[in-house]
Amino acid sequence: MTTQTLTTTRRPALIEAFTAPKGFGDQTLRDRRADAIELLGGIPDPSVLPTEALAAATSRVLAKPGVPALQYSRTEGISPLREWIAEREGVPVDRILITNGGFHGLALAIQSVVERGDLVAVDNPIFPLFLRGLQLSDARPLPIFVGPHGLDIDHLSDQLRAGARPSALYTVPDFHNPSQGTLPGEARKELVRLAEQYGFVILADNPYRELRFAGEQESVEEFNNSDHVLHINTFTKTLGPGLRLGWTVAPERLSRDLVALRSRQDSHSSTLVQAIIAELVTSDPGIFDVTLDQARALYKNRAETLVSALHREAPGAFETVLPDGGLFLWPKLADSSVNPDQLAADASAEGVEYQRGSFFPSGPGTDADRHLRLAYGDVPAAKLEEAAARLGRALQRQQG
Amino acid sequence: MTTQTLTTTRRPALIEAFTAPKGFGDQTLRDRRADAIELLGGIPDPSVLPTEALAAATSRVLAKPGVPALQYSRTEGISPLREWIAEREGVPVDRILITNGGFHGLALAIQSVVERGDLVAVDNPIFPLFLRGLQLSDARPLPIFVGPHGLDIDHLSDQLRAGARPSALYTVPDFHNPSQGTLPGEARKELVRLAEQYGFVILADNPYRELRFAGEQESVEEFNNSDHVLHINTFTKTLGPGLRLGWTVAPERLSRDLVALRSRQDSHSSTLVQAIIAELVTSDPGIFDVTLDQARALYKNRAETLVSALHREAPGAFETVLPDGGLFLWPKLADSSVNPDQLAADASAEGVEYQRGSFFPSGPGTDADRHLRLAYGDVPAAKLEEAAARLGRALQRQQG
Repeated sequence: MTTQTLTTTRRPALIEAFTAPKGFGDQTLRDRRADAIELLGGIPDPSVLPTEALAAATSRVLAKPGVPALQYSRTEGISPLREWIAEREGVPVDRILITNGGFHGLALAIQSVVERGDLVAVDNPIFPLFLRGLQLSDARPLPIFVGPHGLDIDHLSDQLRAGARPSALYTVPDFHNPSQGTLPGEARKELVRLAEQYGFVILADNPYRELRFAGEQESVEEFNNSDHVLHINTFTKTLGPGLRLGWTVAPERLSRDLVALRSRQDSHSSTLVQAIIAELVTSDPGIFDVTLDQARALYKNRAETLVSALHREAPGAFETVLPDGGLFLWPKLADSSVNPDQLAADASAEGVEYQRGSFFPSGPGTDADRHLRLAYGDVPAAKLEEAAARLGRALQRQQG
Repeated sequence: MTTQTLTTTRRPALIEAFTAPKGFGDQTLRDRRADAIELLGGIPDPSVLPTEALAAATSRVLAKPGVPALQYSRTEGISPLREWIAEREGVPVDRILITNGGFHGLALAIQSVVERGDLVAVDNPIFPLFLRGLQLSDARPLPIFVGPHGLDIDHLSDQLRAGARPSALYTVPDFHNPSQGTLPGEARKELVRLAEQYGFVILADNPYRELRFAGEQESVEEFNNSDHVLHINTFTKTLGPGLRLGWTVAPERLSRDLVALRSRQDSHSSTLVQAIIAELVTSDPGIFDVTLDQARALYKNRAETLVSALHREAPGAFETVLPDGGLFLWPKLADSSVNPDQLAADASAEGVEYQRGSFFPSGPGTDADRHLRLAYGDVPAAKLEEAAARLGRALQRQQG
């Protein structure tokens, strides 16, 4: 027998395509002050999660004869939960696929819809972790501008007419992350029309949709009625990220592939978590909407508090738009002489952490680097006011 | 603008490689009698799952200030659970990666270790769903015989010497599925030596390991101490499949890739489920072993009951080996004139369902088709006796 060389360094191309996070998602960027106020992530406040009702639902679920919540279940999800979701979505139950949260829905979509090396149209600016997800298919992003009303359909249309042939398009239609616009109904119709004409699949990522606290809800019918849309949803922002549970409204022509993929990965989402949520929402038909109402009131108050505090603590420094929902403020620096990277460093030194706007572009041509993404969901009002004061002091370092 | 043709039929190569299940896993095979006794899957009995303790743990977890169980957590898993597992495994905590169960650990391994089209050495006979998982990397299986003491290391060694160069090897070392042998310590050492010499990664799939009810536990040190092994484990058979929670003991050189992949798929396992299990096992240090002891006693009784009943109801028909643990019996038909497919059909007509041995080979040369896989985990003793009687009647249909 001859001596072999160990082939320990060879890695699959799938893995080789992964790059380390730069900016957003990079936990190693800097040391934080112990008293830092973090406005970093879209995290729901624990006070508006139905904690006691979840505990009670768990007890009931675990007391059922034979304890089906502890047993295997179908890849698509358990029926009572899928039925409740299907009714809210206005689609047949077999179009609902339970996932481990919204990002999981996106990952399954990327793997089952996008061929390796394909072009994928994406928001610009964008939720940056989606670009990391795209590495699962080694896909090339095609940036499409996002304006005050979400995705710029004219820009997309121009790109398609110029010959771009994406296999998928990614957008956050309600309370865009980071820029907070909501895609109007007419634009939704036109977007779906383009998808059907050019044969791409829309990945409509809608985690914040239920958190509207002002204005009129936009319809999701256009998404749910097209066989060119995967409408990706989650309980993350409403019942808690730690559940890791969401759902995708999938057309029949795509759902079989999603299920076939999922059955080869982790089989199905936790039956226990599914059963707890199903018990929660079906045993008390009003509880989900009551929970949402409490959350909306809290986030409305926090958004208003933060906007007011910014104008009070840093008069004239920011152009702000009070959002109609969601968990983020996206203020723009009014003074073009302010260096936003220096501001982020100074803010950190003053004890406030946020995501720099420069983390969010998926291509050139945006003013995202003049913005800050301030997440207010899990930060009490008094801390938001203190955060604004610290931001004001950080600005003065450059202006003083 | 010219009219486009819809490209609705193009699917990624990843998905195109998936084939529909044949035999094992095919739910459409036949209609079952309403009173059918199912000996189909490795399902733990609800009576030996710590249901009340799980409910109590959930209440405590959801009462913690700030309710961290409902929030995001690290891809690797939450610390208290990883620490408890690491201590049991005898490895540093950073080598423990929490997964959504054993199959999920296998899927992550297949995607992060196996290049598309690679050769992967596999048990023959084999747990058939692993071959479905292999389609995630469009890998080619290299069947290695499994004997009464698990994987045939001599056969593997011959294949390697003859030039086979798998990137991974799949085996169930404890209570092999389906054939129930356990790989002896010396064979474990030799297997690891071959992996290190030839540069492949062992996927040691160990879901039944904790369910030993006779004989001496084999060491897993060889697996946990090699940087050529992913030791894949789960709470599925001990605390319940519906939790969807497991862990992989990973060497440092592979764990980064597994985590990078996982962070692009579903981010992390349910924080809630992790927190519940961590609370369960750490708040009462004896509870996990007490739970295991109850389960082992029950499964020992059921295995013995089924073996006795088979010999009583169908004298001389089966060669049986009473297993030392796990959830399956793998009897062989003593009479070579019995047609095993006809037997399965007749058994179904008599009202007993099991997995035919012919579902399990990964290649030619085994006698698996002369076997039956009878799962006794979730079937009470009286029903096992009735199942044996029905099997006896099914045999008489051919012999009468």
